[in-house]
Amino acid sequence: MPGRSASVTIADVARRAGVSRALVSIVLRGVPGASPENRERVLRVAAELGYHPDQRARLLGSGRSRTVGVVFGLQEPFHGELVEALYGAASGSGWRLSLQPRLARRPEPAAVRELLAERVETVLLLGSGLDRRELTELGERVPVVLLARSLAGGPAVPGVGTVRTDDQAGAELAVRHLLGLGHRHVAHVHGRKAPGAVERRRGYRDVLRAAGLEPDLVGGGTTGSSGEAAARELLGRDAAARPTAVLAFNDESAAGLLQSVRAAHLAVPGDLSVVGFDDSAVASLDTVALTTVCQNAGVLAARAFEQATRRAEQEAGAQDVVIAPELVVRRTTAPPR
Amino acid sequence: MPGRSASVTIADVARRAGVSRALVSIVLRGVPGASPENRERVLRVAAELGYHPDQRARLLGSGRSRTVGVVFGLQEPFHGELVEALYGAASGSGWRLSLQPRLARRPEPAAVRELLAERVETVLLLGSGLDRRELTELGERVPVVLLARSLAGGPAVPGVGTVRTDDQAGAELAVRHLLGLGHRHVAHVHGRKAPGAVERRRGYRDVLRAAGLEPDLVGGGTTGSSGEAAARELLGRDAAARPTAVLAFNDESAAGLLQSVRAAHLAVPGDLSVVGFDDSAVASLDTVALTTVCQNAGVLAARAFEQATRRAEQEAGAQDVVIAPELVVRRTTAPPR
Repeated sequence: MPGRSASVTIADVARRAGVSRALVSIVLRGVPGASPENRERVLRVAAELGYHPDQRARLLGSGRSRTVGVVFGLQEPFHGELVEALYGAASGSGWRLSLQPRLARRPEPAAVRELLAERVETVLLLGSGLDRRELTELGERVPVVLLARSLAGGPAVPGVGTVRTDDQAGAELAVRHLLGLGHRHVAHVHGRKAPGAVERRRGYRDVLRAAGLEPDLVGGGTTGSSGEAAARELLGRDAAARPTAVLAFNDESAAGLLQSVRAAHLAVPGDLSVVGFDDSAVASLDTVALTTVCQNAGVLAARAFEQATRRAEQEAGAQDVVIAPELVVRRTTAPPR
Repeated sequence: MPGRSASVTIADVARRAGVSRALVSIVLRGVPGASPENRERVLRVAAELGYHPDQRARLLGSGRSRTVGVVFGLQEPFHGELVEALYGAASGSGWRLSLQPRLARRPEPAAVRELLAERVETVLLLGSGLDRRELTELGERVPVVLLARSLAGGPAVPGVGTVRTDDQAGAELAVRHLLGLGHRHVAHVHGRKAPGAVERRRGYRDVLRAAGLEPDLVGGGTTGSSGEAAARELLGRDAAARPTAVLAFNDESAAGLLQSVRAAHLAVPGDLSVVGFDDSAVASLDTVALTTVCQNAGVLAARAFEQATRRAEQEAGAQDVVIAPELVVRRTTAPPR
């Protein structure tokens, strides 16, 4: 921030550089028509004076905002990773991101309205809770990409593409890992109505049934405290009715469950194996060291950003992109005793 | 989102409502000059057609953006709470927020440049890492408010106000609580160069020295894994050299330390009392139940938003506002054995 004033104009730069305003404009817009010497001088003076182009004015002139609107959850660590990766994808692309958090007192439709008022050219929704009607209406206005949420097996929504992890395959990977270790009673602390919860339940059930085993579904959620509540339910059962392994909906829930089980003086993985989902920061803590399903945030974000901007440029149509997850084995899974 | 098109104009609304464009403009700007009947009809038609004012065009005409730029850390739970509270403060104020995350590959000066290019009228920096020279330059352009960071005892920076918790008083509260329980060897796993770390160290040292006790400073940080590392150092000591209580820099660090200590089969609070700082979500988990110093995010955010916007309106100058913290006693502190 070398500049000195928020009100430096093209005229100021022209005067100091001793050239015309038209020439300054040519140089700053990067179009042909200036000699290398003039170009260098104008850019140096603009930097010295701290000239900042007024993006609003410049883009308004072009009728374009070149802005990707992003709606995300402020307290969801995995959304934080996706947003960070989106900035990586946007870097150097000529597009900017406009972030709008989804909050308890400011739900998703309000965040979307704010983006539309900013004239974003396309909208990326992370783990969206909008229903099909709301998505249809939004898709008629701007290209929409759902990131980390599917349309739950329903028909496509015009104007709405999706980029997501194959949640069902992720749950299948996790359960096969546990069966391979010799577990026969595997419970799933599921995500209720969270995005991806239906698919993870399906993957869990399919693998168990194919092995001739009974599913054991326990209501959970997305937070650490939901994992703690599920642990209370499991620990309240007779020992014979307890599972020897649990697949949690996500890492936060798995970590809450893990700490509750240990607080009850049971060993993980000795008495209970635990698998999470996301591979977020909590999973790699030494005291957690969670076996988990890795959603590749970098690949998800890059594909979503690419689809959103190409559709805004009318170079592509809506697509449904599914990214394969990977299992990361750490120290919370072992053969049953 | 009842609308059908991103390109509904004032002319469309006027045609459908059967009134002049000037009248539509009067109604939508909320200025006098329309009958109640016309006002109601225009607003209904605008809603039916899904008319959205183009904020960029409208505000450009006024020469104002009425936007508060906010730079925050994407993976810092306490920043998430502050941002949520800032939206509460902005609601209904006529101001909007523009969020810019600070990222590893996109450091704070880049986030600030983006805000200046958007012509924000004032900038709120959460836990800023900018140095005094950078802050001075920024303060010459727009009113700046540092939230959750002090100027570390140095002189005021022109154009830069601060709103923060009294970190020193918070650390003093925590240490007095531990001394009151009978502890005589209290360690501080400190925050190194994090905002507030200097003040918390000072509060910790002052109370111990006033009681004739020796400080025991252990290098820590802001993350769960920094707390785990500090626990390894403490657990590696001879039993006689171990503290009976620890004040951690923040809740994340305290939670990492807590889980490591329990993983080593020591009891918290039986063998070691632990106090955090922030009262963030992790502190109230059942398995953590951390005694901690509560920074009131709602009050901090409201005061920072108020100062930033009043200074943008030239109704007030830069101020340094210090908010008193409170101690929240949960289940990680008890008398020493």
